[in-house]
Parts: sequence; C-alpha cells; structure tokens
Amino acid sequence: MLDSSSNNNNSVGVALNKDKGIEFLDAIAEKEFRFTLVISYTETAEIDGITVAGADKDLVKFTPAADAELLYHGKCKSIASIPATPDGKPTPAVITRAMLRLADIPLTIIDSGSIIKPLAPHYTLSAAHGKSIMNGNAISREEVEQIYRHSIELGRVLAKSTGCLVIGESIPAGTTTALAVMLAMGIDARFRVSSSMPNNPHPLKLKVVEEGMRRAGVGFGSLKDRPMDAIAMLGDPMMPCVAGLAIGAVEYAHVILAGGTQMAAVLALINTLSSRLDKIAIATTSYVVNDPTADIRYLVKSITANDVYVPLIYADPMLSLSSKRGLRAYAEGFVKEGVGAGGACVAASAKSGFRINARDILYSIEMEYENTIEAPMRSVMGK
Amino acid sequence: MLDSSSNNNNSVGVALNKDKGIEFLDAIAEKEFRFTLVISYTETAEIDGITVAGADKDLVKFTPAADAELLYHGKCKSIASIPATPDGKPTPAVITRAMLRLADIPLTIIDSGSIIKPLAPHYTLSAAHGKSIMNGNAISREEVEQIYRHSIELGRVLAKSTGCLVIGESIPAGTTTALAVMLAMGIDARFRVSSSMPNNPHPLKLKVVEEGMRRAGVGFGSLKDRPMDAIAMLGDPMMPCVAGLAIGAVEYAHVILAGGTQMAAVLALINTLSSRLDKIAIATTSYVVNDPTADIRYLVKSITANDVYVPLIYADPMLSLSSKRGLRAYAEGFVKEGVGAGGACVAASAKSGFRINARDILYSIEMEYENTIEAPMRSVMGK
Repeated sequence: MLDSSSNNNNSVGVALNKDKGIEFLDAIAEKEFRFTLVISYTETAEIDGITVAGADKDLVKFTPAADAELLYHGKCKSIASIPATPDGKPTPAVITRAMLRLADIPLTIIDSGSIIKPLAPHYTLSAAHGKSIMNGNAISREEVEQIYRHSIELGRVLAKSTGCLVIGESIPAGTTTALAVMLAMGIDARFRVSSSMPNNPHPLKLKVVEEGMRRAGVGFGSLKDRPMDAIAMLGDPMMPCVAGLAIGAVEYAHVILAGGTQMAAVLALINTLSSRLDKIAIATTSYVVNDPTADIRYLVKSITANDVYVPLIYADPMLSLSSKRGLRAYAEGFVKEGVGAGGACVAASAKSGFRINARDILYSIEMEYENTIEAPMRSVMGK
Repeated sequence: MLDSSSNNNNSVGVALNKDKGIEFLDAIAEKEFRFTLVISYTETAEIDGITVAGADKDLVKFTPAADAELLYHGKCKSIASIPATPDGKPTPAVITRAMLRLADIPLTIIDSGSIIKPLAPHYTLSAAHGKSIMNGNAISREEVEQIYRHSIELGRVLAKSTGCLVIGESIPAGTTTALAVMLAMGIDARFRVSSSMPNNPHPLKLKVVEEGMRRAGVGFGSLKDRPMDAIAMLGDPMMPCVAGLAIGAVEYAHVILAGGTQMAAVLALINTLSSRLDKIAIATTSYVVNDPTADIRYLVKSITANDVYVPLIYADPMLSLSSKRGLRAYAEGFVKEGVGAGGACVAASAKSGFRINARDILYSIEMEYENTIEAPMRSVMGK
C-alpha cells in the first residue's frame, strides 16, 4: 500500500524502525481518524530567549488558545492576528487546519493547564498551568495524577469512535520541559531537542534544566522509574494528558503522537507507564527529522531500546517549493513543527489510502495560508 | 425482566406508553451507561419569584457549576456549601451522585452557556448564556445552530462508548423556558410544568412567557415547525445541546432524557427535528409524575401524538421513608427532580439488571447525604 522508496510525490516516510512503520501505515490506511489538540502552558516560557512561539512575550500566553481557535474557526478570537514568531513566521496550525479540512478529519480540543481558555468548543481538564521548571517543582503531584487518570478515560472514549487518534500539542517552551523530563529519566537529550529557531538555544535550555534538576535534587536518570515525579518536578501539564490519552486510546485504536522531540519525552513517559506500545507511532515533519541542531532519531531509539520498536514517521509537505515566504521559512529552519502539523499530514494522507500526495498537501496548505493569513492582512490594509 | 406490577421494593415504573416503556427497560437492562450533565444559564432566572434553585439570588448563578462540582468531586468548589433552596432543601445532585457511585456509571459534564464554569473537568461548547425570555430574543439564532450541530457530533462520540446515554440538566428557571417553548410549538403546557416549590408559581411563569411571546410576535403554536426559532426567541442554551446530544447519540445507543417537564420541552424539539424517537425515553422521579401542580403525562402524550410513543419512566426513591428531613422534603413537594436525579435512579437500577432495588437506592442516597451535607456541616459546627 505504501511504497516508501517511490517517487517524490510521496509525502510520507519512515525515519526509524522502518518495518514497524510500514506495518503501522498499512494498518491505518483508509481508517477513520480523529485529531486531538492538547493545549497547555508552563511559566518556563517566560524565561527570556527560550521560545519564539508568539510575536512578543505577552502574546506567548495566548498562543495555545489562539492555535485552537484557528483550527476550529479558521481565525483567532482571543488575539487580533494569528500566532507567529516575532519576525512573522506563522503558526503550524495553518498546516494542521489545511490537513483536517483536506481529509475531513474531526477535531477535539483539550485544555490541560492552558492559561487562556480558547473561545471554541473544547474539553477542559480544569487543571492549573505549570510553574517554571527552574524551581524543580512545576506541578503538584496530585494534579499530575488527576490529569493522567482523567485523560486515560477520555482517551478511551475518543478512541471508541475512531480508528486512529492523532494527538498534537501547543505549549510554548515545550522542548525545554521535554529536555528536563528526558534527562531525569535517563535519556541523554542534551543538544538533541528541536527548537522553533534555526539557532537552537541549547545552552540556555540546559542551564534552565540543570537549575531545575538541582533544585529538585534530581540527577541524570534518577527518575527513570518515576515518570509521575519527573512530570511533577520538571515537566508540564501537556505531558500527563497526552500520555494518558495515548494509553487509554491504544486499547481501542491506533495512536499517532503528532509532534517532534516533545513527543519523544511523552513516549519516554508512556514507555514506563504502559507495556502497550505496539499501536503507537510518533509522526512529525521532515523539518524535525532533518533538524541539524537536534536528533529525534537518537531520542526515540534510546527510549525504546529493549525490543520495543516505536516507528518514527515523517511527512514532507515540500514547503521549500512554496510560493509563500512564510511557508518556505519552515524549510529554512524556522518553526518546523507544532500543533501536530506533521502528524496531521500523515493522517490526511493515510485516510485517503495515500492517494493524497505531496502536491495535494502543499496546495491545501497554500490555500489555507491565503485564507487565514493573506486575505485578513489584505483586508486590514484596505486592498 | 422488569415486573412493574410487583412488590414495593421495585423502584422503577412506567407512567405512560407502558408497552414501549417495558421494552425500553428490557433493552437497557445490564447495558453500559454514561451520565451526561448539561449545565446552562438563562437570565430568566433573575426574575423575582421564578426559581428557588439557590439559597439566594446571587447564588442561583452558581447552582449549575456547583451541581457539576458536587457530582464530580463530592463537594462544591465554586461556592462554600452545596446548592440548596433558600430554606435549605438540598440539590438533587446528591441523589444523582449516589446513583452514579452505586452503579459505577461514568460522568461527562457539558457546559452549554453556563455563566460560571465548574472547577471540574468538563466539555464546554463555549456558548453565551441565555438572555431573559421576556425580551422574546433569548439566544442568537446562529448560536442555537452552532450548539445544536456541535452537540450532535458530541452525542455520537459519547454514544459510541456506551449502551445508554443518560442526559440530565441543571439550569435555574428551566421550567419557565420549557413552558414558553412548548406554547410556541403548540403544546398547551399552561399549568402543566413542574416547579421546585410546592406552591407552583404558574401565574408568574405565564406572565413572563406571554410577555416574551408578545415581544417575539409569536402566538400559541406559531413556531410548531420552527424549533430553532422557538429556542432562539423563547428557550435556553440547554435545549439545543440536549436535543443535539440525543439526536446524535440515538444513532448508536439508547437515550434517557433525565428530567421532568423541562425534558418534555426538549422532546417536543427532538420530535420536530428528527424521526428517530424509537430509542428515546424520558425518565424522571415519581415526585414529578405525581406532582398535583403539573401534568407531565399530558405533555408527553400530546407531543408524541402521531403513533410515536415515547415512554415516560419514573423512579421512586422512597424518600418519604427517609430519616433525613432534607430528603423527606422531596416527597413533600419540594425540589422533586433536577440534575437528572430520576433518570440516574433508573440507570443505576437498569445497569444492575434491576437487582438494585428501592431499598438500595434509598440507602445510597442517605449515605451520600451524610457524606456531602451532614458531615461537612458537623465539621463547620466543630462537633
């Protein structure tokens, strides 16, 4: 069904654990899909220089809610424009929305500790947002457990109405909390997590994480078997939610963890919490897989060492060929992934039995870009 | 399976359309159940004398959220005590919670236009609360459509993970909006809707409704075939949500509309919007069925006149035999129903294959009353 070695029209490939990956893609071909966006917030995002997920510091708080609104309404309601980097690179929610519309995939928004609630229908876990991990005490242990348990139940319900549950996230500074949790769990993620900037601020992330670990009294690998403590001390509220959703959902459906190195951290948690990884894959963009400043292959490989092979799937939306500068930026090392964009491309293609190809995907994304970004801008400028 | 004519241990009976009712109860016996509480708000509740769903006027706004919190946590978080009438009769959420725990029935809270959001996990439709129906313009037509469409989708998802979806509500002044919608749709509900007071304020309700109809330019029956307009002009945001949930859910599961005369109004809407009423029943308490100030039998009968027979099921929790004064009040004409209490009793009994009897139900409710009402009160009083 999927010929991963074929022509350049093919938008989906497997970067790690190829046999399992092709088996996974065959299994989800022409299935029903549901896309779930988990939005969340950690005060870690307020550390200078750690994230560009927002045009300025005040707007970063709004990014998760605005991403959710963009997916649901095609425009944001909590802020005037759409989320973008300070120099105007648009949120990957544009890609995700294009894919959900292209393949008619239903959306469920889940709030797990976001600070601004989206003006769109959503499920809220009624959880507090995360504190800065620099304190080594990000979330109460009780809250982590509650989010996790409730998400398992929610994952079961959602999975019973679909064949494949795709789980994306929007949380600013998520790669920093991912780094912290992976280090605490004994995955050497130093210099291996991605960034939405071409100039990945590894030294800053490490400094923040090391300070958090020092305050928590935690060393490399010392929380290897204590995933809940790792989240409570050094993680964010997205993590127990996505882990719970996946663990609940996999009883009834296939699960795509739609994201880059943040989802590697979630996979590390799942791997410790559950033995059922056989129907789980990570799917991301080619921009994360090929990120020269990171190494997601290494992360996934070292998480699933002991004869558990979770495939790392990628989608190449060929944005380098786009006529839109804001989209070409993705191929130049900006943004790269987020809001489950890569997984949404994989899902759209798989739902169509892989008949939706790279050209269809690029065209849909460009149309969405025109509708959600260029058209409103023209109307503001009175043209 | 169900012997409705048997001994007084039997807590469940059929008040209307008996054959269909027994068939319905047989079909749901020993099935999986999910209980959904829809919380909402209408400014109609601010009219003097129209509702006692709250200890005072300011607290009425909090009642739906507090009911949801009580169901989820076993205590309220938005207010200090639990919802009660001004003279201390407790919310029927105590009964509902007892039943969900007795029969291990999972809960989903849905916010459709509540003004205070519950501090508990819930799905929100992100809808505005309703304005007073005295203006004849309670909700925007667009909002009604959005709530309805989204609820259909949500009903489908929820129903796919259960055998029977039980839908209850908490909205103060809901019998007044129910009266208005039924009159506009040609159901002569005057002097036939229930009240949480023994002294049903029919004249006040009618005055409010007639003023609303006058302002909307609507007469008796003139919106017979325009259910969405009836809700927009004279209804509340609970209605399109419950109607949508039921219509979506009935494709995959049985549906219990858990409530009294408010659910009769929803049934009138469903009857116009859908032809699939065969797997729907109304279930309420014996206190509503036997309410001398109302007539739910008449309402259900006249809604489903043309060879559609929706059963009216009731549960008798035998609260007249309770040692607790707050519970005996239910049998004396106070509160009577709400938060899906009657339907929750039916569901608990049905889930057990009707082995859970009236004695079990009364005992569970009394235990819940001790835990949620008496114990916190004792601790406040330092005893």
